[in-house]
Amino acid sequence: MQLTAEHITTFILSISIMLFFAKVLGEIFNKMKQPAIVGEIVAGILLGPTVFGMISPELFQWLFPQEGVIKIALDSFTTIAVILLLMISGLDVDLSIVLSQGKRAISTSFMGLVVPFILGFVASYLFPQLMGIGEDGSKFVFALFMGTALSISALPVIAKTLMDLNIFKTKLGFIIIAAAMLNDLFGWLIFSIILGLIGANTHGFTFEQTLFFTITFVLVVLSIGKKIINRIIPLIQTKISFPGGILNFILILGFLGAAFTEYIGIHAIFGAFIVGIAIGDSVHLKENIRQIIHQFVSNIFAPLFFVSIGLRVNFIANFDIVIVLTILVLAFTGKVVGCGFGAYWSGLNKNESLVVGFGMNSRGAMEIILGILALQAGLIHEEVFVGLVIMALFTSISSAPLMSYFLKEKDKTKFRNMLQERFVIFTNESEKEKVIVRLVEVASKEVKLDREVILREVMLRENNLPTGIANYLALPHAKIKIKEPFVGIAVNKCGVNFDAADGLPCKIIILLLTPENNNEIQLQLLSEIAAGFRDKEQVEKLLTLQNARELTQELKKLT
Amino acid sequence: MQLTAEHITTFILSISIMLFFAKVLGEIFNKMKQPAIVGEIVAGILLGPTVFGMISPELFQWLFPQEGVIKIALDSFTTIAVILLLMISGLDVDLSIVLSQGKRAISTSFMGLVVPFILGFVASYLFPQLMGIGEDGSKFVFALFMGTALSISALPVIAKTLMDLNIFKTKLGFIIIAAAMLNDLFGWLIFSIILGLIGANTHGFTFEQTLFFTITFVLVVLSIGKKIINRIIPLIQTKISFPGGILNFILILGFLGAAFTEYIGIHAIFGAFIVGIAIGDSVHLKENIRQIIHQFVSNIFAPLFFVSIGLRVNFIANFDIVIVLTILVLAFTGKVVGCGFGAYWSGLNKNESLVVGFGMNSRGAMEIILGILALQAGLIHEEVFVGLVIMALFTSISSAPLMSYFLKEKDKTKFRNMLQERFVIFTNESEKEKVIVRLVEVASKEVKLDREVILREVMLRENNLPTGIANYLALPHAKIKIKEPFVGIAVNKCGVNFDAADGLPCKIIILLLTPENNNEIQLQLLSEIAAGFRDKEQVEKLLTLQNARELTQELKKLT
Repeated sequence: MQLTAEHITTFILSISIMLFFAKVLGEIFNKMKQPAIVGEIVAGILLGPTVFGMISPELFQWLFPQEGVIKIALDSFTTIAVILLLMISGLDVDLSIVLSQGKRAISTSFMGLVVPFILGFVASYLFPQLMGIGEDGSKFVFALFMGTALSISALPVIAKTLMDLNIFKTKLGFIIIAAAMLNDLFGWLIFSIILGLIGANTHGFTFEQTLFFTITFVLVVLSIGKKIINRIIPLIQTKISFPGGILNFILILGFLGAAFTEYIGIHAIFGAFIVGIAIGDSVHLKENIRQIIHQFVSNIFAPLFFVSIGLRVNFIANFDIVIVLTILVLAFTGKVVGCGFGAYWSGLNKNESLVVGFGMNSRGAMEIILGILALQAGLIHEEVFVGLVIMALFTSISSAPLMSYFLKEKDKTKFRNMLQERFVIFTNESEKEKVIVRLVEVASKEVKLDREVILREVMLRENNLPTGIANYLALPHAKIKIKEPFVGIAVNKCGVNFDAADGLPCKIIILLLTPENNNEIQLQLLSEIAAGFRDKEQVEKLLTLQNARELTQELKKLT
Repeated sequence: MQLTAEHITTFILSISIMLFFAKVLGEIFNKMKQPAIVGEIVAGILLGPTVFGMISPELFQWLFPQEGVIKIALDSFTTIAVILLLMISGLDVDLSIVLSQGKRAISTSFMGLVVPFILGFVASYLFPQLMGIGEDGSKFVFALFMGTALSISALPVIAKTLMDLNIFKTKLGFIIIAAAMLNDLFGWLIFSIILGLIGANTHGFTFEQTLFFTITFVLVVLSIGKKIINRIIPLIQTKISFPGGILNFILILGFLGAAFTEYIGIHAIFGAFIVGIAIGDSVHLKENIRQIIHQFVSNIFAPLFFVSIGLRVNFIANFDIVIVLTILVLAFTGKVVGCGFGAYWSGLNKNESLVVGFGMNSRGAMEIILGILALQAGLIHEEVFVGLVIMALFTSISSAPLMSYFLKEKDKTKFRNMLQERFVIFTNESEKEKVIVRLVEVASKEVKLDREVILREVMLRENNLPTGIANYLALPHAKIKIKEPFVGIAVNKCGVNFDAADGLPCKIIILLLTPENNNEIQLQLLSEIAAGFRDKEQVEKLLTLQNARELTQELKKLT
């Protein structure tokens, strides 16, 4: 069995065709604001048994044979491709971000792992037939796998989505990325253990040995390994021909990590991922080196891998609507609810938590890699594989628009987005109640409620506990029967007595009306406003302004 | 037959080890001012049956099996590697340089092809046993192959050597590069025809068909193809995601070219090379794209290929001193004599021609690719393959030092490098012969010849035809019994009558004595001096100088 001239012709031609269709469809999906990998996977479905194989079975068999020399050549390429892909995903992981978002990330990722895992595990254990268990599979292992498959996420797709939405370097972005990193780390660990359980491990280690080696590997590489790498990189970059030396070093380390984890019985990609993290964390690694690796891997190797997914199975023949819908429902519910609550409990508000939930929902590449491995190991049926791929595509496609929706929702309720010039008045009234009456007049026209009703509620609160804060700010507020919050501002440059804590007269009086059944929004807005008035000098600057337009502009900057 | 976890472990491990040793030895050879590929090939010999296979045959068989799944996986990688390598070599080819050095490049490359080809062909046809013909090979085809093997050159190694010697962008550099490009183009064409002749072509085209397709392919790709590519590249770079789109485009085109030439019965690398030229010629191709491809291919793919060479055969067991020496002698003689004469006849001097000859002598990668293909096709024995590899290494290693030697030799005989302060005199003698006598006195001490002998020869020439040139310059000269040329200068600010063509008196009188058997050096020096005095204003500036030191400095600048 050898590579002949005929094999070479076919092999090169298949690669060219795969790359070409991957690019064309990736580009089309990109233009539709979708991740390119979705297009690449669709390209594979078109070129695979689903479409091309149906139209012209002989030509398909010739170009993409399912066995023999060309199949081995293609498989060896896609194996290297997926190893490199996980390595560059690892390069993008920044452990310090994980640590900086500590509590929130742990809470989000813990819930994002546990909830979908339990959902998947219980559903698969109780209804194995419905979930499509293989003929001779163990119910327990199958349930373990389905739990893992639902709880894993896709760091590269998530990172790309965050960048597209322009929130990669915001608090929410950091939480999502950090949680996704932890999620992936544990998800792969669990999956590796499953592979060990079903005996995909051919090197004869026991489960305990594999687990021990895995944990030791992760700890050693991410502690001592990381430090050594951080020392060696500058040496290589200065002493050895650049950039050849460092490129080689990174790939060799990645491959060695991959070979090691494959050897101890967990998949090669896990080792490449961990080594990638250790390398990517080095402050000395030059940006153009990342670029060279990144561009080559994500434009040449990764598309080959994603296209190859579609070449494996017939997506129409193996389409089982019950399995597909079950997986979709479990995946969405588990991840969004899990991550959402995790984020909410860690202190985010409802809309922010939903952004995090949908952000973590993308399964992208990782789900599919998991699915291929499970399919190869005989752990799942082709129907389940198709279900997982569709779920991966669907969660990845829906992530950006859903996040975008809740980001807008979340932003609507920001104080700065509620500020409007026309609700700002300048007044000389020196009595508390008269100032409030003036503000209530403005509010009453806007929220279409009788002014007496509003005034009663506001004064009730005011008389219970005066709302003078400090730094010239007073914050009269009330919950009333309205749908959207209202913010009105009165400025009195001489000051009005609101019994402020610092004894100063209040010169900026902000009236805040919120819907009566929404406690959260009132607390959020009060704290946003208070935070904006923390700096006395800034407030004094505000007071020098002469008109409503300038005042709203400056207030937007402060809050 | 499938890629199992065990195969993957071994495969990734072999690749890591190959990359590691390639880098280490490449780096060591680089530090010794040798091309990295020599180190990479040596790494392969160490890892292959020659050394590692002797020390630990079982481990060697496990890591680098000679058949089965892993062998196919490795072969598919090295095949893609060599295709990409030839493609980036093509990217470096600049057709306009070939055209700008037109006559000289054609003369050099023509002779550099024909002489070694005839040497190799005749020797192999007359003494096939001595040259190591295979058992059932045709004498004619074998001779054709050996001729081609000796006449091919290695553009990437040559380009690297020229850059190392800092003459890449000089006249000599351009001539060498242009000649090497032509050389490669024709060399591969001939070799492709040989592959067709021995039936390595499995697609059933006749020789005439293959030849027709090949020539059509080259002409179409380098004319219409080049123009279309030049139009498309800016479109892709602006309309499609950058740099992914263009990276894909280049690789797809390269692979398609490769698949096409493989299909019509010549090797895939030829198509990749031609497509590379067409793409590389585009003015629109951005530099960082070249960089990404170049770095990844030359640091990851190329080393894998070069290491794999050593894995193929046992270099000690198959070492035949007669074959090795014969190939070495034929290769050196053929190339240096051929290119040397080609360059000499096109107008270069002896030392320059030798620089060109040794510059074109590097066989590097190309020879080895040729050798592997011939070995696989059963055209040559392993002994001949070993001989070709050693010749490739030896010609590549020796190229830089030999060129460097003749570059210095060439420079020694430059007029400006012979100028010495102590041979400059200022005189008031107004008679021609008296001035010459003063110069001869200086010369006589230096060259240790009787002053009468020198004077007689100089005056003989002077009386036959006066040596006044123009622009105040006179050039009395003679060939006498000396080893090294001598240059003496007399300055008379009032001028002496040397019957100059422009009727002006001569104020700078340069005495030139050259060895009597070397016509060339006299002509070269005379023309260098005359060229330096072409600008009258510059000469008048010279005449304002007051001492020997300043005069020699300024003269060095002029000539």
